Amino acid sequence: MKYAPRDEIETRISKVKAKMEKASLDGAFFHYKIDYYYLSGTMQDSLLFLPLNDDPILFVKRELSRARRESPIKQMVPYRSLKDIFVHIKPMKRVGLQLDVMPYNDVIRFKEFLGNAEILDVSPITKETRKVKSPYEIGLMEKAAEISKKVYEKIPELLKEGMTEIELGGIMEAFAKTLGHEGLLRVRSLNYEAYTWHILSGRTGSIVSQSDSPMGGLGLSPAFPVGASMKKIRRNEPILVDFGISYHGYHMDQTRMYAIGSLPDLFVGAYETCREIHYQVLDKVVEGTISKELFELSKKLAEKMGYGEYYLGYGHHKVRFLAHGIGIELAELPYIAATHDYPINEGAVFAIEPKMVFPKKGSCGIENTVIFEKGGYRILTDTDERIIII
Amino acid sequence: MKYAPRDEIETRISKVKAKMEKASLDGAFFHYKIDYYYLSGTMQDSLLFLPLNDDPILFVKRELSRARRESPIKQMVPYRSLKDIFVHIKPMKRVGLQLDVMPYNDVIRFKEFLGNAEILDVSPITKETRKVKSPYEIGLMEKAAEISKKVYEKIPELLKEGMTEIELGGIMEAFAKTLGHEGLLRVRSLNYEAYTWHILSGRTGSIVSQSDSPMGGLGLSPAFPVGASMKKIRRNEPILVDFGISYHGYHMDQTRMYAIGSLPDLFVGAYETCREIHYQVLDKVVEGTISKELFELSKKLAEKMGYGEYYLGYGHHKVRFLAHGIGIELAELPYIAATHDYPINEGAVFAIEPKMVFPKKGSCGIENTVIFEKGGYRILTDTDERIIII
Repeated sequence: MKYAPRDEIETRISKVKAKMEKASLDGAFFHYKIDYYYLSGTMQDSLLFLPLNDDPILFVKRELSRARRESPIKQMVPYRSLKDIFVHIKPMKRVGLQLDVMPYNDVIRFKEFLGNAEILDVSPITKETRKVKSPYEIGLMEKAAEISKKVYEKIPELLKEGMTEIELGGIMEAFAKTLGHEGLLRVRSLNYEAYTWHILSGRTGSIVSQSDSPMGGLGLSPAFPVGASMKKIRRNEPILVDFGISYHGYHMDQTRMYAIGSLPDLFVGAYETCREIHYQVLDKVVEGTISKELFELSKKLAEKMGYGEYYLGYGHHKVRFLAHGIGIELAELPYIAATHDYPINEGAVFAIEPKMVFPKKGSCGIENTVIFEKGGYRILTDTDERIIII
Repeated sequence: MKYAPRDEIETRISKVKAKMEKASLDGAFFHYKIDYYYLSGTMQDSLLFLPLNDDPILFVKRELSRARRESPIKQMVPYRSLKDIFVHIKPMKRVGLQLDVMPYNDVIRFKEFLGNAEILDVSPITKETRKVKSPYEIGLMEKAAEISKKVYEKIPELLKEGMTEIELGGIMEAFAKTLGHEGLLRVRSLNYEAYTWHILSGRTGSIVSQSDSPMGGLGLSPAFPVGASMKKIRRNEPILVDFGISYHGYHMDQTRMYAIGSLPDLFVGAYETCREIHYQVLDKVVEGTISKELFELSKKLAEKMGYGEYYLGYGHHKVRFLAHGIGIELAELPYIAATHDYPINEGAVFAIEPKMVFPKKGSCGIENTVIFEKGGYRILTDTDERIIII
């Protein structure tokens, strides 16, 4: 078990403080575990207070001794209620709370203790800071990529004709867990969940569902309407495996294509087009092209190669992103998307996933998690990219 | 795949409307997927509007055709933004929103469209309604219990000396998924997650962590600090398996004890005490004893039998509940807990879990999911309750 080093946490905090100063915030509370993990190193039941001109305080509900072991934050205070917290906090004029995720009722309870302070959303600051990964973070993501690669390389041994999609998902997960995969994928949303077991075969690859992805899948029930299903995997149909990994909370995302027997030409051609788009866009990322132009470029390439209709979904089901940043959330900044107006920065790690969906037939595509560094890109998920025929 | 029948959904809606009328609400929005699944039958990306004196409208972002198949709600309207919604909604005086889970920013966006309407938290109404399960819900929970039983009965075959806790968790999950288990356990909390893989052996059973449970476990990293770990399972130590199941979104919770070789007497005695408490409390549930008295009774029993110090945790780590209601959330009303002041109603389904933690040694206990019906109780998780020695 690795703990974030002191200098790593201090650097992150100072970056966030610099942005807080720019936003004229006297202090901010980090209430959401994803962000206080980033700023403290622990996900124990806590609340991080970051005053602009003083040392951070981690208020810990459960479990203090463990938080001390995991986090280099010096000042830790046990607490049970907000009252316990506010005896340690001086009055402030402008205060940051995580208004994008904190439930309304919780914010109201905070406001009672904050008097007339102006309250602002501090989440854009951590989101922006997390866009650039440190060498320590990249190290954890490399380890996640290593697990991911081993899992994908195991698929030819695990995949059998007639097994259900969810059965394959389950045994892949079981294997991944022996390597350190942590099971859950985390997304910043009240209602959206990501499941590691996104395995779609033949027709289920063309089913659209609740999730903002070109192919939702059939899922298991109306309560789990996304991802692998009880459909049996057959010969000669596309098998899309989009299996996420988490290691020390850092995600890794990749997609590869499989078939038992053979893969129909339609999907072979579409897959090669996806690969072509993937690499052409990566070259443009490095040149500093801005996000929405990268997205448009990918669409034009798909159209030019005759796949415009199927690219990133069909009909009104098309999604409007090609890549999502990835880190301690499965989807975070930066995006390559229709409405995002910035270039991709060095230090960004993102999952790029050109995919095609053919109504009633299935889907295919590729996905790699990539880092933009040293003036070039490096693919973290460096698993064989050929279609695997079993 | 089962879809909720029309009369089931209509009954649920009319129960909620009756409570809305009592609270003088003109209408309410159900924003959280757990609750709109309950009231509509679908978890597609939607928003349910329930006017007091008119038919419900399900606003669907993605995917409308699937929502139509899954839900008997007649009026469905596709939408992209709140603006699309509010053209269908008449002005109201008192409006319910799910203020306990809706992020602050989202509530503020709603308020812009609600004018001067008074806004109230509608979540207590669905929580209260969901306390009593319908025969349809009980049917789904019986199926979940059937899956759970098969998984527990498989353990003697899967559990081997020297395997890690997480390895056992992984293969149990893989097996459970072939039977219809859906993988995730859902809790109503920004920060708290439940993992199915709550398998603790020997010392890890005495580790306290982020979760509000007597034993948190070591987990896999500071980002996954609860549940099964990379610790190897050894001979002659208590192995506590608390493995949750989800079927059509309905949870099932149980705990059983295992050992390889033999189980030290300390844990055998403690386990029998837990069983004794479990059954004595259930008899009192049926008699109508109120929640906090049931909790106190259980504490007194533990003390009388010489286990007061270890019951529901040790030192200041003790938890203040013995049972949690269970349904489409892993923990919901009713609770048997120190501060809950009501009797358990007929129709309630709850997981009762007397457990003991021995510092540095490990933990043991039993957990069953139980329904209170027809003037008595019925254990849904009717797996063999003996300690299984392998």
